[in-house]
Amino acid sequence: MSAADPGPGAGELIDIRLDLPGGRRTTITVGPGALALADGEPVAALVADARALALHGQRLPTAWRERTLELPPGEEAKTWAGLGELLESLAEAGLERGCRLGLFGGGATGDVGGLAAALYLRGVPFVSCPTTLLAQVDASVGGKTAVNLPRAKNLVGAFHQPQRVLADTLVLATLPRDELASGLGEVVKTALIAGPQLLARVEALAPALLEGDPDALALVVADCVRTKARVVAEDEREAGRRAVLNLGHTFGHAIEAVAGYGIVPHGVCVAVGLGCATDLAARCGTLEDLALPERLARLLRSLGLPAGLAQLRSARDLTLHPAELRRAMDGDKKRSGGRLRFVLPRAAGAIDHGVAVDEADLSVVLAD
Amino acid sequence: MSAADPGPGAGELIDIRLDLPGGRRTTITVGPGALALADGEPVAALVADARALALHGQRLPTAWRERTLELPPGEEAKTWAGLGELLESLAEAGLERGCRLGLFGGGATGDVGGLAAALYLRGVPFVSCPTTLLAQVDASVGGKTAVNLPRAKNLVGAFHQPQRVLADTLVLATLPRDELASGLGEVVKTALIAGPQLLARVEALAPALLEGDPDALALVVADCVRTKARVVAEDEREAGRRAVLNLGHTFGHAIEAVAGYGIVPHGVCVAVGLGCATDLAARCGTLEDLALPERLARLLRSLGLPAGLAQLRSARDLTLHPAELRRAMDGDKKRSGGRLRFVLPRAAGAIDHGVAVDEADLSVVLAD
Ligand SMILES: NC(=O)c1ccc[n+]([C@@H]2O[C@H](COP(=O)([O-])OP(=O)(O)OC[C@H]3O[C@@H](n4cnc5c(N)ncnc54)[C@H](O)[C@@H]3O)[C@@H](O)[C@H]2O)c1
Ligand SMILES: NC(=O)c1ccc[n+]([C@@H]2O[C@H](COP(=O)([O-])OP(=O)(O)OC[C@H]3O[C@@H](n4cnc5c(N)ncnc54)[C@H](O)[C@@H]3O)[C@@H](O)[C@H]2O)c1
Repeated sequence: MSAADPGPGAGELIDIRLDLPGGRRTTITVGPGALALADGEPVAALVADARALALHGQRLPTAWRERTLELPPGEEAKTWAGLGELLESLAEAGLERGCRLGLFGGGATGDVGGLAAALYLRGVPFVSCPTTLLAQVDASVGGKTAVNLPRAKNLVGAFHQPQRVLADTLVLATLPRDELASGLGEVVKTALIAGPQLLARVEALAPALLEGDPDALALVVADCVRTKARVVAEDEREAGRRAVLNLGHTFGHAIEAVAGYGIVPHGVCVAVGLGCATDLAARCGTLEDLALPERLARLLRSLGLPAGLAQLRSARDLTLHPAELRRAMDGDKKRSGGRLRFVLPRAAGAIDHGVAVDEADLSVVLAD
Repeated sequence: MSAADPGPGAGELIDIRLDLPGGRRTTITVGPGALALADGEPVAALVADARALALHGQRLPTAWRERTLELPPGEEAKTWAGLGELLESLAEAGLERGCRLGLFGGGATGDVGGLAAALYLRGVPFVSCPTTLLAQVDASVGGKTAVNLPRAKNLVGAFHQPQRVLADTLVLATLPRDELASGLGEVVKTALIAGPQLLARVEALAPALLEGDPDALALVVADCVRTKARVVAEDEREAGRRAVLNLGHTFGHAIEAVAGYGIVPHGVCVAVGLGCATDLAARCGTLEDLALPERLARLLRSLGLPAGLAQLRSARDLTLHPAELRRAMDGDKKRSGGRLRFVLPRAAGAIDHGVAVDEADLSVVLAD
C-alpha cells in the first residue's frame, strides 16, 4: 500500500454505493467480517453453493439458514434444468412477491441465483454474498446473471441488480490456489481499466494478495468494485462503454474454450488475454504507454499468473493451436452483433473498445 | 359507434404510442391489414403458434418466414422445458446480439416468445403480432412475459417490452367462439377501467363485435390498447396503479383454477370476475354508481358472456364450490405479497386497488 494513500485500517469495512437509473441502488460492503451485517439484511430463503456452505455456512446468521436451497458446487449449477429446479424450489417454499433471496457462493451461484431472482414472479430482490475472489471483484457487481446452454456459456440471462452485496474477505482463506489465481486475473484486468493508482497498489500488495491476507484483499476488492461500479453506473446494459470490462476476454474466452472448459480457470485465461490484448495494441500502433507490456508481465508473474500464451502453453502443457484460437474467437462474435471487435489498452486507465484489427496482427499475437 | 365520435373510417389503421422510462418506446398499430407493415419491420427469426401459422402465415412477408420456430398451439408452449428448447433453437440458428425476433400467435406465444427474447443473450428486441383478441387487447401490451411451473401459472417471467406491435383484426375471423368470448371478457374489463365513453362504445358495437367485424374490433382494440398503455406508462412494473388491470382477476383466477385450467377460457372467467368484483364493491359499500351491476350484466349478456357465478355454473354445468374458490384465492396471494387484496370498481373509470374486504362479504359473493 503506498504511504500517500493509507486507506482504511486493518479489519475495517468499506462501503461502496452503486446508483442506477430509476432510483435503484446497491450498497456493496467489503472487508473481513462483512458477513456479520447479514443479520440486518433478512432473507426469505438462502441459495448456496454446497462447498461454500460446508466451509463457511456458520458465518451466516441462523435466520438465513432456516430455508436453504443448496446448489451443486460451481459451474455445474449453471444449467437450464438446474435453474428450473431452483425456481420450483422457490415455489415449493411458498415464496411470495417481494420476498428477498440471499445468495452465498462464487460467480456461478451469483449467476444462477441472480437469474432465479430475476425470473421468480417476474423479479424478487436479492442480497449477494460472494465467496470467491472472482465473484467479489467482478461477478457480484453489475447485475449480469446467466446460465449456460449446451452450445455456449452464458447464452441465457438477464440484468438484475442485487440490493446489497456483502463481500467478506475472510471466506477467501479456503480458496483453492487456482481459484485465487483466477480472481487475481480479474483484479489485474480491473487495475488496468482503473489506471496507474490501482495498478501501483496491486503491485505493492502482490505478496500479501498471494498469501490471501484479508486486509490487503479488502483494499483491492474495494478498489475493483469501485471501478466496476463506476463503469456500470454509466452503461448498465452494455450499450457502449461497459464493454471495456471485457478487456482480455475475447482472447480469454477463446483460450478457455480451446483448452476445454474447466481446464484453465477463467481469470487465468483473462490474465493471458490481457497480455495478448496489450501485444495486439502494440502491433496496431495504438499502445501509448510502451512500458506497459513489460510492467504487466512483471505484475502477472509476481501474482503467479502466466504472462502470455507461450508461458501458459508450457506451464499447463497445452497446444492451444493459433488457428483453433482464431476459430473460437468467431464464437464470441454472437455477443457483439456479428463483428469481431477488441478491447485494447492505450495505457493503464485508457482503454479502447470496439476496435477492429488486421488479421495479420492477430495471427502474430496468437502464434506467440 | 356513437354519432358524436365517428373515429377512423373502415379499414384504417390506428397507431398508439407507449412511452416508457429510459427513452424506450413501443408503437402499436391496430386494424384490418396491419400485418402489411411487417414488411418494414425485418426480423431475424419468427416464433409462431402452429395453428395461427397454418391459418394466417401467408399474411406475413416471405422474409419473416425464412427462419420459423414453430410452437405447439396455445398454453402447451408455456413450459420451462419448452422455453429451454426455444432458446436452444435461437442459439442453433446462430442469432446474434441485437437480432430481432418476430412473434405470431396468441397470448401464450407472446408470453413464451417474449420471455425467450428477454433472456436470449440477456435480451434481444422483438416485434409482436398478436393473433387472438385477448392478445390484441391485453397480452401484447405492457411487457409482461411468462411461462408456467407445474405448481402455478405464470410463476416465472420477466418484463420485456416489444419494440413494435402489429394487431391485425383480419386474423380474428378464424377464432373459435370461446376464444372470441375470452377476448371480449378482457374488452369489458378494460372498458370498465377506461370509463363511461369506452363502455358506451362497447355497448353500441356489441353485435358487430360478436360477429367479428374487423373494423368494429379495430376501434375497440385500439381503445383498449390506449387504456392499457396509459396505465402501463405510469407504472410499468406493477408497483401500484398497474394493479387496476387485474380487475376481475382475483375471482377469475380462482374460477379458472377450480374449474380446471383450459375448461373455462381465461377471459370468460374474468368476465364473471367483473360481476363478482362489482357485487363485492356493492356489499362493501364502496360502489358509487349503483346502476353499474345491472349495466354490466346487460353488456356481458349481449356479448354472450356469463354475467355471474350462478350463470356460469348452470351454463357450463360446473359446481365451483364457494369454499374451493375461496381456497384458490389464497393461491393468488403469492403474487401480491401475502395479503388477499381486491381491485373493486366505484364506477366505470374509477377503480380502487389493494382493497381488503370482510370474509363475510366475500362468502356471500362466492355463494351467489
Ligand atoms: N455475472 C458476472 O458479471 C460474472 C463475471 C465474471 C464471471 N462470472 C461467472 O462466474 C463463474 C465463475 O465464478 P467463480 O470463479 O467464483 O467460480 P464458481 O462459482 O464456479 O466457484 C468455483 C469453486 O469454488 C468453490 N468455492 C466457492 N467459495 C469458496 C470458498 N470460500 N472456499 C473454497 N471454495 C469455494 C465452489 O464450490 C466451486 O467449486 C462463471 O460461471 C462465470 O461465467 C459472472
Ligand atoms: N402477458 C400478458 O400481459 C398477458 C395478459 C393476458 C393473458 N396472458 C396469457 O395469454 C395466454 C392466453 O392467450 P390467448 O387467449 O391468446 O390464448 P392462446 O395463445 O393460448 O391461444 C388460444 C388458441 O387459439 C389459437 N389461435 C391463435 N390465433 C388464432 C387465430 N387467429 N385463429 C384461430 N385460432 C387461433 C391457438 O393456436 C390456441 O390454440 C395465457 O397464457 C395468459 O396467461 C398474458
